[in-house]
Amino acid sequence: MSGSPARPAVAVVGGGVIGLSCAWQLAESGCQVELFDPAPGQGASHAAAGMLAPVSEATYGEEALLAAGLASAQAWPRFAAHLIEASGIDVGLRQEGSLLVGHDPDDAQQLRRLGALLERHGLEAEPLTARQARSLEPALSPRTASALSVPGDHSVDNRRLVTALTVAAERAGTRLHRGPAQPVMQGGAVVGVRHPGASAVHRADLVVLAAGVATSSVAGLPAHALPPVRPVKGQILRLRGAAGLLSRTVRALVSGVPVYLVPRADGELVVGATTEDVGLDRRVTAGAVLELLRAAAAVVPEVGELELGEALARFRPATPDNLPAVGLTDVPALAVATGHHRGGVLLAPLTAQAVVSLALGRPAPAAAGPLSPTRFAAAVERSAS
Amino acid sequence: MSGSPARPAVAVVGGGVIGLSCAWQLAESGCQVELFDPAPGQGASHAAAGMLAPVSEATYGEEALLAAGLASAQAWPRFAAHLIEASGIDVGLRQEGSLLVGHDPDDAQQLRRLGALLERHGLEAEPLTARQARSLEPALSPRTASALSVPGDHSVDNRRLVTALTVAAERAGTRLHRGPAQPVMQGGAVVGVRHPGASAVHRADLVVLAAGVATSSVAGLPAHALPPVRPVKGQILRLRGAAGLLSRTVRALVSGVPVYLVPRADGELVVGATTEDVGLDRRVTAGAVLELLRAAAAVVPEVGELELGEALARFRPATPDNLPAVGLTDVPALAVATGHHRGGVLLAPLTAQAVVSLALGRPAPAAAGPLSPTRFAAAVERSAS
Repeated sequence: MSGSPARPAVAVVGGGVIGLSCAWQLAESGCQVELFDPAPGQGASHAAAGMLAPVSEATYGEEALLAAGLASAQAWPRFAAHLIEASGIDVGLRQEGSLLVGHDPDDAQQLRRLGALLERHGLEAEPLTARQARSLEPALSPRTASALSVPGDHSVDNRRLVTALTVAAERAGTRLHRGPAQPVMQGGAVVGVRHPGASAVHRADLVVLAAGVATSSVAGLPAHALPPVRPVKGQILRLRGAAGLLSRTVRALVSGVPVYLVPRADGELVVGATTEDVGLDRRVTAGAVLELLRAAAAVVPEVGELELGEALARFRPATPDNLPAVGLTDVPALAVATGHHRGGVLLAPLTAQAVVSLALGRPAPAAAGPLSPTRFAAAVERSAS
Repeated sequence: MSGSPARPAVAVVGGGVIGLSCAWQLAESGCQVELFDPAPGQGASHAAAGMLAPVSEATYGEEALLAAGLASAQAWPRFAAHLIEASGIDVGLRQEGSLLVGHDPDDAQQLRRLGALLERHGLEAEPLTARQARSLEPALSPRTASALSVPGDHSVDNRRLVTALTVAAERAGTRLHRGPAQPVMQGGAVVGVRHPGASAVHRADLVVLAAGVATSSVAGLPAHALPPVRPVKGQILRLRGAAGLLSRTVRALVSGVPVYLVPRADGELVVGATTEDVGLDRRVTAGAVLELLRAAAAVVPEVGELELGEALARFRPATPDNLPAVGLTDVPALAVATGHHRGGVLLAPLTAQAVVSLALGRPAPAAAGPLSPTRFAAAVERSAS
C-alpha cells in the first residue's frame, strides 16, 4: 500500500466528466489522487448536451437505470452548488424543466405512451395541448401536435462542467497527467499504473478505469476483468445566436426522428443527437447534419436563422444492458466507472459517490448496487463454458 | 514614372484569383509587379466551386456577360497549361462537361426553358432523358425528372488554382506583400500605394484594385472613381470521401432550389451555393446548410454518407448590371478588376489579359470592352445632377 489507510492512493484513468468527478470527490475525501488522460474532457464529455433527464428518458424495462438516474438527478443541485463553490466557475445548471413535443399525429401517439409510462411510475409529467406548449415556448412551430411538460428534467453546460471539475479536482489536490496510462498487475492484483512503454510505476491502492469507450480495450488485464463496452456514435450540433429563443430543453419526435434542443445562457443552442452503431467512425456526416437540422427546424422554425457553430461526432460507452458499469472488478484493487451511454453527465454525482465509497470501504449508495461490473464477468464465464 | 516605359511598375491591391491572375500575367509581360493582400486567396476565391460554366449560367438579357464568359472559357485550357508549367502545380482542370438536372416536373420545365435559350444562342447542349442521365451518372436519384448535357462547361480546383497562381506570380517576379494597401493620389492622379497609416509610398505607373467586395470602399479616392460593388453572400459546403461518386459537375434545380455538386480528383465534392443579399453577415447559418444538404441529397442520395468537411460563407462582388468592372477608371493611372460575382474563376484569363493590355497600352480583347468601369461613373454623375 503506497498510501496510509486513511489516505488511500487512487489512480484514475480517463478525464471525462466521470473520471474528473471521481477524482474531485476522491481528493476531497482525503485520497491522494492522480488522473491520467491525453486529452481531458475532449471525448464524449465535450459533445454532450448536458441533459439531466431521467424522466424524459424513461424506457420500459429499464427500472434500474431509471432509479440510478433519479437518485443522481436528486444529487445534482448540491453537487453543482458544491462544485461552483470549489471551482469558482458557474456550471450553467438550468432548472426550468423540459418540454417534450410530438410533431405529427404519430409522434403525438408515441408521446402519450411515454406519458402513460411515467404516470405508472408516479413520475411528474403533465400533458399539454399544442396551444399550452406554444404559450410556454412561443418559438415552437405552429404545426406542433402535442406536448408533455416534464418539470423535473434539467440541464447543465457540459463544457463549463468539465472546466469546473478540472479546477476543483486540482484545487483538492489531484495531480493531472496529460498522457495515457495503463494498469500494472503484480501477483494477480493491480498495483498502480504506468505510461505505456515506460517502466516507472505510479503505485496506487486503487485504480479506477473511467476511459469511456476505451475502457474495454485497456491493455495488460485479464479479459474477464473489463465490462464489455461498445461505442455508440453520436453526432451533435452547436448553434449560436439563440439567446431568448427557448427557455427550457425541448425534446421532440419529428416523424419518428428524435431531436433535442438545449439552450445555454450564452445563446448557444445544442441540437442533438444521432445514435449510430457504426463502430469508431469519427466522421461528421452530411446525412446526420441534414437529419438533425431538418428535425430541429421542423420543431423550431427559427433554427434556420441561427449560426451553425459546430458539428461534432463522439462515442458514447454503452454496455449490453444499457446500465453503467461502476464498482470493483474481480481483479483486486481494480475498479471501473464507464458504460454511461447517454447518461454520463446525469450520473456523475452518483458515480463519484459510489467510487468514493469503495475507495474508503464504506457502503455504496443503494441505487449504484445494480451497476456492479461483476455482472458481466459472470456472463463472460457462462459464455466461455 | 518609377519604371521605364518598357517595364511599367504596377501595384495590384487584392490577392484573390483575379488579383493573382493579373499579377502573374503582368509580371510575365515584363511589368514590375507588387501585390498587396493581408490574406491572399482567403476571400471568395477560397470558397468558389471553380466552375467554368458560361453556358449553364446563361441568362436572358445578359449577352455581354455570356460573351465574356465564352471568351474566357475558350482561353482556359491554355491558361491552365501555362500555369501548370509555370508553377509546377496541377490546378485540377476537369473537362468532362456538366450535367444539368431537373428534379421534379416544374424543375424539368425550367430546364426546358434554359435548353431553348441555349439553342437560340447556338450553344452546345443536349436534352437527355432521366435514364440517359443516370447512365452517365449512376449516383443520380431514381426520381430525376429530366436532364440537359452541357459538354463544354468544365471546372477547376479553386484552391489549387490560388496556390498555383501565387507560385507562378512570385516566380515571374511579383513581390507579394501580406498586408493592406491603399492608393495614393497626387495632382489628381494615382501615383502608387501605401500601407494605411504608413508614410512610405510604393510608387507605381498603374494601380489595379482587385479587392473584391472591398474595392468600392477603398479609402482616399474620389467617390466617382470606384464602381459600385455590393456583397452577395454565398454559403458552400465541402464534402469528403466522394471519390468515384460523380464524374462531372452536376447542377440541379430541386423544387426550385438551385444546387451544384462539383467533384474533385481527391474525392472532395463541393456543394453550393446560396445567393443572399444580406450585407456582410459572415455567419454560416443552419438554414443554408440544411437547404444545400437537402437539395444535394435529393439529387444524389449517397451524399448523406459523405463526411461534412467544411461549411463556409464568403462574399461575391456584384455590380448593378451583373457585369464585372475591369479597366481604367477616370482617375489617371487607376484601374479596377472586380465585380466578377459568380464568375471570378471563369473570367480570370480574360480579366488578366485585359489588365495586361491596358498596362502596356495595347488594345484590350473585344469581349472585355463592355466591362469598362467608367459606365458607372456616368451613372453616378447622372444620379448626382
